[in-house]
Amino acid sequence: MKIAVNPAAEEWEALLRRPVLDLRKIEKIVLPIMEKVKRNGDKALIRFASEYDHAQISEVLVSKEEMAAAADKVDPLLKASIEIAHKNIHAFHAAQQQEELVMETMPGVICRRRSVPIQRVGLYVPGGTAPLFSTVLMLGVPAKIAGCKEIVLCTPCNSKGEVNPVILYTAKLIGIERVVKAGGAQAIAAMSYGTESVPAVYKIFGPGNQYVTAAKLVAAREGMAIDMPAGPSEVAVYADETAVPDFVAADLLSQAEHGVDSQVILVASSQQVVDDVMAAQEKQLAKLPRKDIAERALENSTAIVMQKEKAAIALLNEYAAEHLILSVKDPHRIADRIVNAGSIFLGNFTPESAGDYASGTNHTLPTNGSARAFSGVSLDSFVKKITLQEITPAGMKKIGPAIEQMAEAEELIAHKRAVSLRLNYIEDQDV
Amino acid sequence: MKIAVNPAAEEWEALLRRPVLDLRKIEKIVLPIMEKVKRNGDKALIRFASEYDHAQISEVLVSKEEMAAAADKVDPLLKASIEIAHKNIHAFHAAQQQEELVMETMPGVICRRRSVPIQRVGLYVPGGTAPLFSTVLMLGVPAKIAGCKEIVLCTPCNSKGEVNPVILYTAKLIGIERVVKAGGAQAIAAMSYGTESVPAVYKIFGPGNQYVTAAKLVAAREGMAIDMPAGPSEVAVYADETAVPDFVAADLLSQAEHGVDSQVILVASSQQVVDDVMAAQEKQLAKLPRKDIAERALENSTAIVMQKEKAAIALLNEYAAEHLILSVKDPHRIADRIVNAGSIFLGNFTPESAGDYASGTNHTLPTNGSARAFSGVSLDSFVKKITLQEITPAGMKKIGPAIEQMAEAEELIAHKRAVSLRLNYIEDQDV
Repeated sequence: MKIAVNPAAEEWEALLRRPVLDLRKIEKIVLPIMEKVKRNGDKALIRFASEYDHAQISEVLVSKEEMAAAADKVDPLLKASIEIAHKNIHAFHAAQQQEELVMETMPGVICRRRSVPIQRVGLYVPGGTAPLFSTVLMLGVPAKIAGCKEIVLCTPCNSKGEVNPVILYTAKLIGIERVVKAGGAQAIAAMSYGTESVPAVYKIFGPGNQYVTAAKLVAAREGMAIDMPAGPSEVAVYADETAVPDFVAADLLSQAEHGVDSQVILVASSQQVVDDVMAAQEKQLAKLPRKDIAERALENSTAIVMQKEKAAIALLNEYAAEHLILSVKDPHRIADRIVNAGSIFLGNFTPESAGDYASGTNHTLPTNGSARAFSGVSLDSFVKKITLQEITPAGMKKIGPAIEQMAEAEELIAHKRAVSLRLNYIEDQDV
Repeated sequence: MKIAVNPAAEEWEALLRRPVLDLRKIEKIVLPIMEKVKRNGDKALIRFASEYDHAQISEVLVSKEEMAAAADKVDPLLKASIEIAHKNIHAFHAAQQQEELVMETMPGVICRRRSVPIQRVGLYVPGGTAPLFSTVLMLGVPAKIAGCKEIVLCTPCNSKGEVNPVILYTAKLIGIERVVKAGGAQAIAAMSYGTESVPAVYKIFGPGNQYVTAAKLVAAREGMAIDMPAGPSEVAVYADETAVPDFVAADLLSQAEHGVDSQVILVASSQQVVDDVMAAQEKQLAKLPRKDIAERALENSTAIVMQKEKAAIALLNEYAAEHLILSVKDPHRIADRIVNAGSIFLGNFTPESAGDYASGTNHTLPTNGSARAFSGVSLDSFVKKITLQEITPAGMKKIGPAIEQMAEAEELIAHKRAVSLRLNYIEDQDV
């Protein structure tokens, strides 16, 4: 990690610069893949499963038998843990449900706003060495609570053509029935354009490698809704002398082990805190299975001594971290002054991994500084809000003249006339 | 308008096809404009004002004197109307404020979710023949309620270098101080990259022509948040024999007068309803100042007789109209079955123009079918939701083992260790 001491505000931008992904080259690779799925549907998915996942499959959908057989293959202890996480995530997302807003803005003018589920959603769950069943929970649970009618989950299979049983178990637990053996850009294309087995959806969610990200952006350009622009994961830890160096080091490393392009930022109240954390980090790093990945991620990373609290907070707000851990004396006071962050972890006993898995909050969060304007995935991500209005004849008499005035000033005479005709009718018919 | 009678579901897609904008060509025009603003800042804006708006200006910011002088130039009746609209829009958007959600998902695990204003937002207000002050209200009011710290409004000036006084009056009424004389792609670039006078913002809102839309998409690709992908405006009216043909015709025309690429769809319960509406439309069209525009828009438009209510509702949901007017006997019953729409107008006395100006709902709505997944602009558009979590030592003892299990199953050992270290510490130190 680079170390900086009390850097001036002009230096922050350079210090906090994130690793940049240039997706334009990747786009050139994914476009023909997507085109083939558009044209050949399931056949293309089967071919890509052979080409990229080295799997010979004849059906892209996971069968009912495969779904049913999954539970027996999952360790009971892991199942119990997943159920705890499921319960917390469900509780916190269910609490996000909103009643319909109904308001009479003026007599006879009634406005409403209601949440309506997005009817068809697609969830992408990356493959790789380990099964990311936590993503199934984080996307599937709010989709179910929202009431999305059709939920399709795409995830790559292994070379035997099997989807990891923990993923299937978790999907089944939530009530997701349609699981598709497809990964990468081909999966995003399948959910965008539809195939014989995969319905075209209205919104695509989920993390993924650069091919998945590029494909989601292609889909977005064609009008698809996506959860958010995804970038490498990142954490910022703000630590003072009340922080436990071992904990801070562990939190930095749990971000760094995600990938070589992950970034971790330590903001510390003194050089001593930095030294203690670095010492702990060195020890912990030595024993980490994903040591090589973490080491490379740490090369992108910076420890910053910020003796003044006000400047530290300003710097954290400038960075707009996906995950922000406040290992400081009064974390609530600091949290109240944070205006840019994805999710905040308060105090010494709240590691990022709690939010990654089980506390109840969502782990799909805005990266790359987009926390300045974007929220993480929530129940809101699976609904849209439709407004409604109803005006009574009496209400029209009250509000109509104002509309006529404004429409005329904007030179939209048909807009005005839509009101005038009604006002005349109300007058003539005495309704 | 084309007319179709009881079309089969397979024909809907073709019948409901929207005029397509190919923005790739436009993008090639806007990219160098944006680049110049990025490089030359205010100087570029001043040059483009000369080139595109034929205005010789020396300052891009509207001065305090110009702001102060605006009110006197606006008709008092129009001012009173704007204040009525302002009051309704303010009331309905203020009611969208959400309390912080606080929940103990399990003992000692406290999750929160709070709304935090996007600190810097940019509002684009198109120029053209008429001043679109209604857009100032629709974007500025929720931005102010949200508490956005910095609000910048860009709008082109006329050839005298003046911004329309109604726009300035409305901005001042809301409390927007920074108004920039810039239109088109150059305005979007200024808000994206920042100039000497224009702060770089985190999210850009507002309608505009194809250059503005293309520039917003370029900005979005570079990581900027935007309100929504904008397309030509559209309305669908569902009318039965209780509808007043004159009203329906006026509503169709108020959409058609927006632009030659607007689209209107009439879904009617019988041929008689279509005939009556067409007759009324013909009469009204003859007397419309924007007749030529409306006529061309009607060429993109279709009247569909749908005798079966169930099929009519399915078709309306497939279309996913930006504006949906329900001029039918029991509009509430139908509205409850609409799952895709931007905003719904109930009954005979609720024209679209009510929502466009003054009822209280927002008029910035998802077009081009994006109502399937997107919501219109609301208070939510100006905030992000930050989640927080706090775990007590007792809570960590309860939730920790589940996190360890899950992290291990995902092969993220540093994630597991961040918990194990804390559990050991709690045990050792007896906290």
